[in-house]
Amino acid sequence: MDNIDAVGFIGLGQMGIPLAKNLLKTGYRLKIYNRTSNKAQCLVEMGAEVKSQPLQVATEVQVLMTCLSDDRALVEVLGPDGELAKALGPGGIHLSMSTISPKTATRLAKQQAGFGGYYLSVPLLGRPDAVAAKKHAFLLAGDVLAKKQVETMLKTISAGVFDLGEEPASANVAKLALNFLIAAAIEAMAEAFSFATKNDTDPKAVFNTLAGTLFACPVYQNYGRILLEKTYEEPLFKLGLGLKDMLLIAESANTSRTPMRFLRVLEDRFLAAVAHGRADMDWTAINDDVVSEAGI
Amino acid sequence: MDNIDAVGFIGLGQMGIPLAKNLLKTGYRLKIYNRTSNKAQCLVEMGAEVKSQPLQVATEVQVLMTCLSDDRALVEVLGPDGELAKALGPGGIHLSMSTISPKTATRLAKQQAGFGGYYLSVPLLGRPDAVAAKKHAFLLAGDVLAKKQVETMLKTISAGVFDLGEEPASANVAKLALNFLIAAAIEAMAEAFSFATKNDTDPKAVFNTLAGTLFACPVYQNYGRILLEKTYEEPLFKLGLGLKDMLLIAESANTSRTPMRFLRVLEDRFLAAVAHGRADMDWTAINDDVVSEAGI
Amino acid sequence: MDNIDAVGFIGLGQMGIPLAKNLLKTGYRLKIYNRTSNKAQCLVEMGAEVKSQPLQVATEVQVLMTCLSDDRALVEVLGPDGELAKALGPGGIHLSMSTISPKTATRLAKQQAGFGGYYLSVPLLGRPDAVAAKKHAFLLAGDVLAKKQVETMLKTISAGVFDLGEEPASANVAKLALNFLIAAAIEAMAEAFSFATKNDTDPKAVFNTLAGTLFACPVYQNYGRILLEKTYEEPLFKLGLGLKDMLLIAESANTSRTPMRFLRVLEDRFLAAVAHGRADMDWTAINDDVVSEAGI
Amino acid sequence: MDNIDAVGFIGLGQMGIPLAKNLLKTGYRLKIYNRTSNKAQCLVEMGAEVKSQPLQVATEVQVLMTCLSDDRALVEVLGPDGELAKALGPGGIHLSMSTISPKTATRLAKQQAGFGGYYLSVPLLGRPDAVAAKKHAFLLAGDVLAKKQVETMLKTISAGVFDLGEEPASANVAKLALNFLIAAAIEAMAEAFSFATKNDTDPKAVFNTLAGTLFACPVYQNYGRILLEKTYEEPLFKLGLGLKDMLLIAESANTSRTPMRFLRVLEDRFLAAVAHGRADMDWTAINDDVVSEAGI
Repeated sequence: MDNIDAVGFIGLGQMGIPLAKNLLKTGYRLKIYNRTSNKAQCLVEMGAEVKSQPLQVATEVQVLMTCLSDDRALVEVLGPDGELAKALGPGGIHLSMSTISPKTATRLAKQQAGFGGYYLSVPLLGRPDAVAAKKHAFLLAGDVLAKKQVETMLKTISAGVFDLGEEPASANVAKLALNFLIAAAIEAMAEAFSFATKNDTDPKAVFNTLAGTLFACPVYQNYGRILLEKTYEEPLFKLGLGLKDMLLIAESANTSRTPMRFLRVLEDRFLAAVAHGRADMDWTAINDDVVSEAGI
Repeated sequence: MDNIDAVGFIGLGQMGIPLAKNLLKTGYRLKIYNRTSNKAQCLVEMGAEVKSQPLQVATEVQVLMTCLSDDRALVEVLGPDGELAKALGPGGIHLSMSTISPKTATRLAKQQAGFGGYYLSVPLLGRPDAVAAKKHAFLLAGDVLAKKQVETMLKTISAGVFDLGEEPASANVAKLALNFLIAAAIEAMAEAFSFATKNDTDPKAVFNTLAGTLFACPVYQNYGRILLEKTYEEPLFKLGLGLKDMLLIAESANTSRTPMRFLRVLEDRFLAAVAHGRADMDWTAINDDVVSEAGI
Repeated sequence: MDNIDAVGFIGLGQMGIPLAKNLLKTGYRLKIYNRTSNKAQCLVEMGAEVKSQPLQVATEVQVLMTCLSDDRALVEVLGPDGELAKALGPGGIHLSMSTISPKTATRLAKQQAGFGGYYLSVPLLGRPDAVAAKKHAFLLAGDVLAKKQVETMLKTISAGVFDLGEEPASANVAKLALNFLIAAAIEAMAEAFSFATKNDTDPKAVFNTLAGTLFACPVYQNYGRILLEKTYEEPLFKLGLGLKDMLLIAESANTSRTPMRFLRVLEDRFLAAVAHGRADMDWTAINDDVVSEAGI
Repeated sequence: MDNIDAVGFIGLGQMGIPLAKNLLKTGYRLKIYNRTSNKAQCLVEMGAEVKSQPLQVATEVQVLMTCLSDDRALVEVLGPDGELAKALGPGGIHLSMSTISPKTATRLAKQQAGFGGYYLSVPLLGRPDAVAAKKHAFLLAGDVLAKKQVETMLKTISAGVFDLGEEPASANVAKLALNFLIAAAIEAMAEAFSFATKNDTDPKAVFNTLAGTLFACPVYQNYGRILLEKTYEEPLFKLGLGLKDMLLIAESANTSRTPMRFLRVLEDRFLAAVAHGRADMDWTAINDDVVSEAGI
């Protein structure tokens, strides 16, 4: 094990809870904060120390993990002038796991460098059940030495760590690119299954063919099944968050002058799905409009 | 082994040659025809019997395999009034492997039923090297008893056979759906890699992340590599054939009243690529326009 | 007036009736045929001579006008081997007004040239009320001398004739291009009005602004009003025919390798509208899906 | 004439100069400011009074006109805390002509109301030559009484004023909707002309047909001509500004959950054109990519 004394953790949501549990099980000391304290109860029973303010957490650790829902939530927790980064102090490491915009990541990294600390982007790939089973992967980008210090810890609670280089924003860019690819795979399968149905061919047979051969990988196997069974109501990743991600990708695509035609289709799909009241379903629920357009 | 006496084979192209070789190696007697006879030389050395006319082949066998480039080539070989189907006679089986339109498949099946025979659609999934190594899969649809007769043979020369039901056209619909999914995966990765590049992130690092986790399957691993290395010039599947397939899918989508937004993007991509003179490259070469649009 | 003795007219639909009436009013002798004879009653009262077979019409005139719903209807009337073109004979002129594919126009022109006659493409621009009021325009393409012979007649019953050159298909290409532009204007306004509505701005005020300034022309003024008042149920041009035209344009675009991104959007719009059961409404009814997508 | 004593004017660009000239010619007293003073020389000769700071202008007038390039430029001139709005004071009117986001308009209107003044959105429709000839139109939205005070003045220097209601942002929404419609018309014509060209039909003949009939209005007549003559190099409206507008529309569309499929195509078109280095050409230069895609 490494010589990390105590780890701070802020953001105990669907992802944060299993991550924190696995850290505790592995033997790390945890200092935690959450807006709603009852969520943390199970962690306290496993030995976590609860603080009443984020700033208290940051003051007492060298390594801080945050796992929040979006740019605004993260910036709010860090404080208007980067108070948490300041509290972490020289040598302090912020492991930022939220899916946020590359622009925000770059700004926060610069801010923390001003206090002598290190901002590492560590978005993760996987849904809550995978995280609980340590089967997810981390994308990691930022300062080389800082990355070395946390690598063992991250490997211990995951299936692997992918290095995206020294620019923190690159891990966010990669995470957005992957979420785009997943959404594109969902749309493509939704269209293919509608195409099969309307041409008198069983979409389940088409699914078996692809999932057993050229597309034998988690995205096609798992999302394909959800599309066919229409079990959108138990969201593992909410459609509203999917829209947020599509718009984050669009923002970076627009700023960097990158035309992305599939992305444009997806922006409209997610906008329509949210306008139709499906923000809280699983993001595979974009399928409902594909199906409806075909008059199925 | 089954009790198939001799198999006819017409269409000795990139796919046909390795299929025929594997049939011969497995012990099947082959009667073959090809427009250009020199291509068949290697098969003759392995024991195949060459006929100077397609009709001669059909007359002497009960099971005929065809593997041609498109609807027109297939219909031309079969004869204006289905002469080959007639020659196969009652109980004869036509294993049609070409990627053709579902509409043509339905018409040919009806024609052959008129002569007391069986038309089975057997498009295959895989590129020439996979076919040679018996690592490809067959999609199979048509009459239940006819399928039973050829199942052993098809399994012997492939990695597996997927049953698409009793309507021959369904195997063609499934094949088109799969080709659409592959093309969509190529476009999605091309956009994702351009997005990464223009946002100062190494597309190779993004590729490693996806190919090692959520997208760990042949389509993403193989085509992703080709996109990054830009080795389009050695085509395994020609872009011009890709356009043909996109237009076949569009035809069926239009006829069946199925809107398909990703397909529309792909139609334009392939049209532009062919207009730009890349019909003979690998179909991943649609990437050149994605890259050019982004000013990379 | 010119020295045209008698004009044949086949296809007395929404367009044909007012055209025929205006010819009679102007003093032309008419020989007509229609599948359903009661439609022709009003024309008989004005002096038209009814024939029981298309061939009889063609035999007795030098100039034949046809105004049918699509390629198939036209080809069926002309006969499998161009019997009507043959009956018109050397010097005979076929004024073909149907919105058909350029490919069919070229084939029919060649066929008629074989009999020594002239095929002129004369699609018209305008809806039935405009045709009745002689406010529509003709597009005219084909042999120079043949065009000269019919020019006076066409001018007498319209607001103007636009010359598209000597290749008959060019008038069909132009007609398709114009229908594409109209459909694109409808979609664009539909999106703009939804955009206004969802941003708390009165679409009627937006309409007044555009219709009174930069877009002060029939397409925007007329279709804009229909979009706002949603009077789709009284079709002047049926949505199902709109889909037919979009697919004709797509066919020519695909064959000529011309990517058309707006066209792709329109193909899907019209497919969805037809799948939703709106084929018999006015083609502005594509708006219903634009509005529904926005959750309005 | 009204009883407006003196008018302040800030933003003497391609649009501002002719507007200011016409105000002076009509008899209004002008107090002006511009970053680069030489531009104002011609106005000084006509009687305008130059101030060295924007704040001085605002202090000495009751009615202030601004005509700047984007949200940021406008906000910068107004001061971080709305210093200019404060200087205008109670009853002061800000006529804001820039094409900015509806969101910014709403925020500035609220800010000025806090100082007892009125913010009116007055974007204009027309290119510089139309503005000089008083042939452009104003869109006007905001407080009823404030609008009444400036109406005479606006009418005097334009061809007309369109009232968009009491919410200032509505004039911006309408302006964006109109710019979207113009861009859509350019794209549609570009596609139609490429379609004609590749189908052996003269696009000029197609243009004559549309410009003389169903599309006989400034947008189609003027932009159609530019597309055919490819005189993009003398920009009347720069492509880079076109991209800015497309992204403003997209921002409002995304925020208001309005899918807009044509807009998505346009976003990618303008991104590609800017990535290809055509930001300073006329915005009709998006045509170059339409043409190139078709291999023309």
